[in-house]
This record gives sequence, C-alpha cells and structure tokens, in this order.
Amino acid sequence: MTIARFLGKEVLQMDTKEYLEYIVKVIHTTVVATADDEGLPVTAAIDMMDADESGLYFLTAKGKGFYDRLVKRQYLALTAMKGKGTMSSVAVSIRGKVRELGNERMPELFEKNPYMKEIYPTEESMRALTVFQIYEGTGEWFNLSKKPIERASFTFGGAEKKAKGYFITDACIGCGSCAAVCPQNCIVTDSIPYIIEQEHCLHCGNCLTACPVGAVERR
Amino acid sequence: MTIARFLGKEVLQMDTKEYLEYIVKVIHTTVVATADDEGLPVTAAIDMMDADESGLYFLTAKGKGFYDRLVKRQYLALTAMKGKGTMSSVAVSIRGKVRELGNERMPELFEKNPYMKEIYPTEESMRALTVFQIYEGTGEWFNLSKKPIERASFTFGGAEKKAKGYFITDACIGCGSCAAVCPQNCIVTDSIPYIIEQEHCLHCGNCLTACPVGAVERR
Repeated sequence: MTIARFLGKEVLQMDTKEYLEYIVKVIHTTVVATADDEGLPVTAAIDMMDADESGLYFLTAKGKGFYDRLVKRQYLALTAMKGKGTMSSVAVSIRGKVRELGNERMPELFEKNPYMKEIYPTEESMRALTVFQIYEGTGEWFNLSKKPIERASFTFGGAEKKAKGYFITDACIGCGSCAAVCPQNCIVTDSIPYIIEQEHCLHCGNCLTACPVGAVERR
Repeated sequence: MTIARFLGKEVLQMDTKEYLEYIVKVIHTTVVATADDEGLPVTAAIDMMDADESGLYFLTAKGKGFYDRLVKRQYLALTAMKGKGTMSSVAVSIRGKVRELGNERMPELFEKNPYMKEIYPTEESMRALTVFQIYEGTGEWFNLSKKPIERASFTFGGAEKKAKGYFITDACIGCGSCAAVCPQNCIVTDSIPYIIEQEHCLHCGNCLTACPVGAVERR
C-alpha cells in the first residue's frame, strides 16, 4: 500500500493486486452479472477462487445459463461486498473481459477452496466444471463506513483507466450553488474554480443541476 | 408459509410477499445489474428500501449512470445474499421490470430507512433522488447451508413462471449413468423414468452429458 496526498489529506491507496486479493480472501462470494441474448442482465452468486497479477479466477458448471452467457459475450461485471445490510463497510466492483481456461488450474483452485469438495465430491461430478479468468478490467473500491464515503478506482490487465464522474471547469464563478446541494460536503471552495473531491463523490449530479453557468462537466 | 410435500418430503415454501420482505428486512443491501448501451453488464450495491404485494422499492440519484440505464431499458437483475463469503446461507435473485415513481413514497422510504438522512442530510441534497419500483419479475431462492442445497422459484406482478432446468423424459432406460455423476445426489431412481429433484438441482448439466439415450431435457 502507499499513502498518497490529495489536497493535503492522506489517502490510503491499495495497489491492484491487493484489491483483487481482498476480493478473494476477505469477501470471496460476489454477485456476478452477465447479459442474456436480449442484452438483459442476469445475476448470480459466484465465488472468486483466486487472484494474481493476471486477474481473478472462478469456476462454473458448463450446464448453466451463466456458462453460455460468459462464452457468448466474454464479459462480466461483479460487485463484492464486505459486511452485511446497511452495515456494509466495503464494496468492490469490477467490469471486464473473461476467457475460459477449462481444466487449467482446477486442482489448485480446489486445494485453495476445499469446500468445493463438498459440492462436487467425486471426479465424475467435477466433469461439468470449467475455470474462467477475468484477465482485463476496471475496478472501483468504496469504503461506505467512512463519512463522507471514500472511493478509488483501479485497472488490471492493461485496461484503459477512464476518469468518470463530475468535474468543475474554469467556467466556475465561485457562487457556492454546488456546495450548497452536495450531500457529501465534498466540494473544496478555497479557490476558484472549485474542486470536487473525487474520492468522496457519490455521482448524484446535484452540482451539475445547481450550477447556474454550466461549469460542471460530467465524464 | 406453507409446507408442501414433494416426493414424500416436506419442503418449506414461502409466499412471494415473504420472499420480497426477506430481501428488504433481512438482507437489505443487494447487488443490482443493469446493461449499458452496448448490452454489457454493470453492477452496483443498492439497498432495497421497502416491499409490498406490488413489488420492491429502491432509490437512486439522477446523476448516476445507473439511473440512465434503468430509464433506458426499464429492467434489472439483482442478487441479495445473507451471510458472508463461503458462509453465505441464503441467496435470493430477481429479474424484472422497473418503473420510476419519482418523489412518490420518498418520505416514507426515508422514514423506514433513517440512515439515508446521514447520506442525504438536507432537502437540497435530496433533489437528485428518485424512487424506482420493481413491479413485475421472477425470483429464485437458494438455501446454500443445506446439503444438498435447496432452491425454489417465485414470481410477482403477474410475470410468467417458466420452468427452467433439467428434466428426465420417458426415454429414460434406468441405466444409472446420470445418478452416478450428480454432485448433489438428487436423482430419484426408485422408478423409471428417473426424476431430478428440482429443489436440489445445481443445473450443472452432468446428467444430460452422461445420458446415453438423450433422455435428459434442458428447459
């Protein structure tokens, strides 16, 4: 981990491998979404079995609709949450490309996740299983227990990092309309143009709506 | 709740309103998936604020990409999990149609979920918020703590209930090949044709692959 300074405050930064290992070791069961033939989403609980610098690894059975959707679009999104209900402390989301590895790594994943032997107890029963790798993607980390909430983004496998969210341009006149409607109180008004603290922004859009001169840009 | 008998065993059945209330009261924070303009999935942690016979209710901010995707496709999928990691005991998934209600029910949802006042503390900050209703859909309930696992399906709002999964037809010759490869040991072989116990089936597909006479049908 590194400690970065952002607008004079310390922000704890994990590196990509640490984010991925957190998903596997601390959260483990995630909700994965794929799209069906009509482009409509489908979700399922999927365990992330392992992580390394090349991505995340999970298993599925070839008889499931999930398998067909993965093979067809080669893409998924997932959110992994630590804690429960309104006590959720951390949420990590990933979107990215997947590829089927087949039997490669299967013994290793079972060794690292011995509970799988209870669900698929015999070699014969394991025939349906296949390993997938999420090898390239973008991620977002949210710490929901902090006030204001904290967020950070990361990439792996060479995915392009795109800055998304709300940003204030030089058109800012310092009127304070945006700061007045910000639920997270995360607009720095010390100088003009004001600055939206990206690591606390909820993307609610209030600032853009409130700005009388169109100085808030959505990317 | 009712107790139904299936192949001589008691199966606890919740009714639809109970499944929806379970999501709101016991699990509350769910992972919701929508699809983007390219038909690729996006996931986010969303709290289910309330439920009644007409569906599930949640809030979002109009500045989020999530809002745009909901308005565009009017459809979502979600999975709600109780317990954590490999100790997850229950997973409930829903797919269905959504509509924006706007400010309708907003005060009621804040009253029932007072933590929202911490995130959106002022009337001004609440401007971005809008209420959505999931008014028609299909659901699946999984109890992962049982061995073999238990599953059940339900619908609400008039959605059509489609039987999905693996079923054995009259072509069955009682050879036992399917039962030998079933990870859940959930094929009843007392009479021919054999019967797959739907409430325990993982949809792994081993049986269909193993059957020498093509007697297993996938719906």
